[in-house]
Amino acid sequence: MRAFHRLDDFRQYRQGVGRVAFVPTMGSLHEGHLALARAAREYADTVVASVFVNRLQFGPGEDFDRYPRDLRADGEKLAEAGVDALFAPDEDELYPEPQTCFVDPPDLQHLLEGACRPGHFRGVATVVLKLFNAVQPQAALFGRKDYQQWMLIRLMTRQLALPIEIVGIQTVRAPDGLALSSRNAYLSPAERAEAPRLYRTLSELRVAVLREGVACCAMLEEEARQSLDGRGWKTDYLTVRQRADLQTPSPASRELVILAAARLGATRLIDNLEVE
Amino acid sequence: MRAFHRLDDFRQYRQGVGRVAFVPTMGSLHEGHLALARAAREYADTVVASVFVNRLQFGPGEDFDRYPRDLRADGEKLAEAGVDALFAPDEDELYPEPQTCFVDPPDLQHLLEGACRPGHFRGVATVVLKLFNAVQPQAALFGRKDYQQWMLIRLMTRQLALPIEIVGIQTVRAPDGLALSSRNAYLSPAERAEAPRLYRTLSELRVAVLREGVACCAMLEEEARQSLDGRGWKTDYLTVRQRADLQTPSPASRELVILAAARLGATRLIDNLEVE
Repeated sequence: MRAFHRLDDFRQYRQGVGRVAFVPTMGSLHEGHLALARAAREYADTVVASVFVNRLQFGPGEDFDRYPRDLRADGEKLAEAGVDALFAPDEDELYPEPQTCFVDPPDLQHLLEGACRPGHFRGVATVVLKLFNAVQPQAALFGRKDYQQWMLIRLMTRQLALPIEIVGIQTVRAPDGLALSSRNAYLSPAERAEAPRLYRTLSELRVAVLREGVACCAMLEEEARQSLDGRGWKTDYLTVRQRADLQTPSPASRELVILAAARLGATRLIDNLEVE
Repeated sequence: MRAFHRLDDFRQYRQGVGRVAFVPTMGSLHEGHLALARAAREYADTVVASVFVNRLQFGPGEDFDRYPRDLRADGEKLAEAGVDALFAPDEDELYPEPQTCFVDPPDLQHLLEGACRPGHFRGVATVVLKLFNAVQPQAALFGRKDYQQWMLIRLMTRQLALPIEIVGIQTVRAPDGLALSSRNAYLSPAERAEAPRLYRTLSELRVAVLREGVACCAMLEEEARQSLDGRGWKTDYLTVRQRADLQTPSPASRELVILAAARLGATRLIDNLEVE
């Protein structure tokens, strides 16, 4: 596997290869990322992954500084997963000057994660577009654990006429159901034992919604939230939404998704589950 | 010259050619546009021009509906100027759904033209990025008559890591000094006779600034503005700025540009002049 830290070096490499499938990451890689890297092979002969902890998508007081970083281990995992090139730009390669030009996806960016983390999605959309422009992929793969992010990237790609296929890969979970996340590393042993309750709560809510119907969503959500908060969680949101636009479902809504973000101690976990 | 009205057809053509130099226009072409098309040949073997009147950059009450359109004449002019392909998308090819994802260049978009035309530069930046993504050029040429637009496109290209060289071409003027513009077609014969005063005023202001010094800018601007308004113009702005950021110059500023927008009857004209 080749590794590049400078944009110019990567661009030179890029000119020598054909179709590229791209896996953008913030590093601290787990099986969820590696599932993306392995799936990428189906979309192009050359697979490129990036590792870049993007300051722009962290709010003040969030965990940018303590976000786990281990580029050497990440490189080994990516090489093993068959990635052809790693693009791990230094911060001043992607932000050589203060960023003043942003991608703004207004409809989605102020909901749910966006409401909890003002500016987060503007930072995500902007860095993903920059990475797309640097890597020039024909396909890009994202994990559906970050469901709203995946939707936002699809929307941006379509609305900005980018010739890139956006692929969403199913969430990879630990045997006890906990969605893999780099932030799971923050959990104490006791918190780690409690953490799978988030997924169990989503699963139970799905069963309840299918049984009781969309009209009861608000009540069922509230019960699920109270149940989590009663166990020491602090729920930011736990809500049933329409998949198409993440708005509150109408009685006629068929395609739904349950999305949740909740804090366990100092760690904020997110997860989601589609309702068939 | 090939002509394309659908994005998919153009993309198919694009895959068969190498480096592209691109001239985006809103049509109603004059010698200023054709100078861009001819200069483009220096930057690539294939020259692509686009004609698209971009609704997104017109405010309510502006001249979107009456903006002059003559695609047949435009095509003939571009072919004569040696353009290889014309991309003239139908509106629903570039906007198949309401645009909700925008490029926001905050620093520049609220000044001068941006202050007079709220949302204008967001619309410009967004459509230019979409056209870049469709055309995938290695170089793109813009007229410096739209000085702030040219700056904004350079900023956007640099800040979004687009691998595109942005070239600014000098304003083409009528023999009497009037900057060529599609909107000159709106002028009555009497207005057309008066219109060159805008450029004369800029030229006189440049001489005065060079003679009196930057410290006197505010006074000299005010005199120039009053002189224009005394002849029946309505000046939106007429101002000496730093070239680097279009901010008011400090006593130490060296690289300056004078920018003006003024209405003559129902027609709004803009022009600018760099101060050496």
